[in-house]
Amino acid sequence: MSTFTSTVAKKIMLIVLDGASDRPVDGATPMSRAKTPNLDRLAAEGINGIMDTISPGVRPGSDTSHLALLGYDPYEYYTGRGPFEAAGVGIEVKGGDIAFRCNFATVEDGVVTDRRAGRIKETDELEKTISEKVKVPGVEIIFKRSTGHRAALVLRGKGLSADITDTDPKKEGSPIKECHATNDSPEAKRTAEIVNSVSKQVVEALDSHPINVERRKNGLPAGNSILIRGAGMVPHIPDFYDRYHLKGAVVAAAGLIIGIGKMCGLEYLPLSGEEAKVEGSQVAAKVKKAVKALDTHDFVLLNIKGADEAGHDGDFEKKVAYMESADKALKSVLDLKDTIVIVTVDHSTPVSIKDHSADPVPVLINGAGVRVDDVTQYNELVAYKGGLCRIKGMDLMPIVLDLINLTKKFGA
Amino acid sequence: MSTFTSTVAKKIMLIVLDGASDRPVDGATPMSRAKTPNLDRLAAEGINGIMDTISPGVRPGSDTSHLALLGYDPYEYYTGRGPFEAAGVGIEVKGGDIAFRCNFATVEDGVVTDRRAGRIKETDELEKTISEKVKVPGVEIIFKRSTGHRAALVLRGKGLSADITDTDPKKEGSPIKECHATNDSPEAKRTAEIVNSVSKQVVEALDSHPINVERRKNGLPAGNSILIRGAGMVPHIPDFYDRYHLKGAVVAAAGLIIGIGKMCGLEYLPLSGEEAKVEGSQVAAKVKKAVKALDTHDFVLLNIKGADEAGHDGDFEKKVAYMESADKALKSVLDLKDTIVIVTVDHSTPVSIKDHSADPVPVLINGAGVRVDDVTQYNELVAYKGGLCRIKGMDLMPIVLDLINLTKKFGA
Repeated sequence: MSTFTSTVAKKIMLIVLDGASDRPVDGATPMSRAKTPNLDRLAAEGINGIMDTISPGVRPGSDTSHLALLGYDPYEYYTGRGPFEAAGVGIEVKGGDIAFRCNFATVEDGVVTDRRAGRIKETDELEKTISEKVKVPGVEIIFKRSTGHRAALVLRGKGLSADITDTDPKKEGSPIKECHATNDSPEAKRTAEIVNSVSKQVVEALDSHPINVERRKNGLPAGNSILIRGAGMVPHIPDFYDRYHLKGAVVAAAGLIIGIGKMCGLEYLPLSGEEAKVEGSQVAAKVKKAVKALDTHDFVLLNIKGADEAGHDGDFEKKVAYMESADKALKSVLDLKDTIVIVTVDHSTPVSIKDHSADPVPVLINGAGVRVDDVTQYNELVAYKGGLCRIKGMDLMPIVLDLINLTKKFGA
Repeated sequence: MSTFTSTVAKKIMLIVLDGASDRPVDGATPMSRAKTPNLDRLAAEGINGIMDTISPGVRPGSDTSHLALLGYDPYEYYTGRGPFEAAGVGIEVKGGDIAFRCNFATVEDGVVTDRRAGRIKETDELEKTISEKVKVPGVEIIFKRSTGHRAALVLRGKGLSADITDTDPKKEGSPIKECHATNDSPEAKRTAEIVNSVSKQVVEALDSHPINVERRKNGLPAGNSILIRGAGMVPHIPDFYDRYHLKGAVVAAAGLIIGIGKMCGLEYLPLSGEEAKVEGSQVAAKVKKAVKALDTHDFVLLNIKGADEAGHDGDFEKKVAYMESADKALKSVLDLKDTIVIVTVDHSTPVSIKDHSADPVPVLINGAGVRVDDVTQYNELVAYKGGLCRIKGMDLMPIVLDLINLTKKFGA
């Protein structure tokens, strides 16, 4: 008789190497070129495949693909970037809110002279002033600065709509655009009026703000206006715990991913600058934080961002180097007990096109009970030979939930 | 820094080897037995897989599968064979028309004595007479002969329906059937009356037609009636260019495929008999025409028909021979630049069943950016080992559009 040890894992670590997969250049990709002994070992001792995070030939955003990886159909829950950015910035968005991304910008004589207000950083006091002074009867206005010149705006109340246009003129030398309704509904018209009022009030509130007086004195563009774009109605997203009975956490640096995690009900575990210093790199600190989070959580989403940036830069060697540093940082994942480890990618970002593509991503699942296949490397050129064949992003959570014995039988 | 040559292709050549795939006989199929060095090289330097053109286990027609291969969901756009045959015959069908396939037939003493009018060929004058004489108030009647005894009929006007029965008795010795409505709608009843009127008027117009007088004199069956079948309402199909921003062409011999291409908005490039003579074979002339079409078009659908016929004939060796001649003709495809080449099959036509089957077809994609896999032969017995794994017909266009960088991002 056989004896079994640790036959069913209890926890899940979902590691997303953002934008890491690619198309081959002279037969190799950054992933296939990079020396990644730890990822290769996870692949060799796991089951592998390729995955269309949305659907074959559909070019995913990081937001839509992460929703799918978490088991939330993006065609049902994705309502635009605004809501997820707003959540990422730290606004406690609610279903039905209308959310926007914003830029601080410079307006002089009615014309936008700098769409980023000289990449202004000192927006803390400007945020406070906006929050104090900008009011519209019957609607709650929530404004929050993000990193640099970025910010988010949320309108909360009844009778609002996201069917409105942006105020961003997209180029310097033009005035801030009027916001218009894109349909005839009274909700859209009213929301457009509110946005125009906010837009105007912000200029009145900020133009002679001490921060801007100081900036003008120093020859810097004033942060005296905001450009409002990406309207989306915050979707009613079922809570991750209610859905899966798993206490979840997200470790990520990008606001968009943090926002998605939060909106799905994952606890965001922020990284301090101090932690990155202690561990020697941000990726090492993130991995440590994520591994530690498994002590207190059942599910951890760890998003590792660097390869995507190298892809957008079109820099093959940088992407190779990033993969190798990520691999080093991930060594501790090999020692996880009672945990299903998934390593995947949200979308390919080929250096040849410097943008996302729909090429399928590699996915490995490692842990108790998986049918180990013949694949011994982790990259997008060999993953298709593995036992998972070709799956979709929405398949991942059901497959993994089944491995930890949390799926219910359909039938008898 | 790396340099990239031809990183993104601009054009697409979709080659469909109609009905070429099969089931194994003593371990081999016509495709696996045939020596096809050019196709094998395309496979070896490309990515391979198997494909359910409609869905696993769904036995495709050439029409429904071609619609899917072009990215048009056949469950949405396929309304019966009539519309596509009519378009293939050269009638400029419009959305809402009711279209039929027809046969010229022989009626004597009220009974169909030959369903194909002795495979009559001289139908040109008969078509003219029908067009001149057959009239029904309030509806436009468009009739056009095709090859041999075949023809197409279109009814255009308001208040029509395709919910009606055929007039074809399906056997000799019976009268032409009355057309009946298959539901209680006034549109169906009216359309059935129109069809019966057309049916009757055709006999009146053709029975003593000089062509038929001459045929009777020579002891041949008269082409003095038409059998009307396959009613379908012409679907409103979005134009290929509007959908993909690609200028498309179709090179094909079968009316059904030409009709599908035309209805989707592809430009039909007909082949002259002269061209076939110059190139030595019809398949060579078609390949040459298709390759040349890439100078003026972004997308070319090339349908190569012979293997399907050999399959319907149940002739293994004929199918092998056809594959080998097609392979020779396809040599010039190896030299295409800046083009994504797809070689696939619309449906299997196993010699063992002499009909279409739902067995998945092989598909290869060759060109800049594809993840080349280990498959080195082009046939349905090895294709599953390739990097595409198993896809669906409707996935093909999105995948290829992504390779030429024409997909839009879903999300951010």
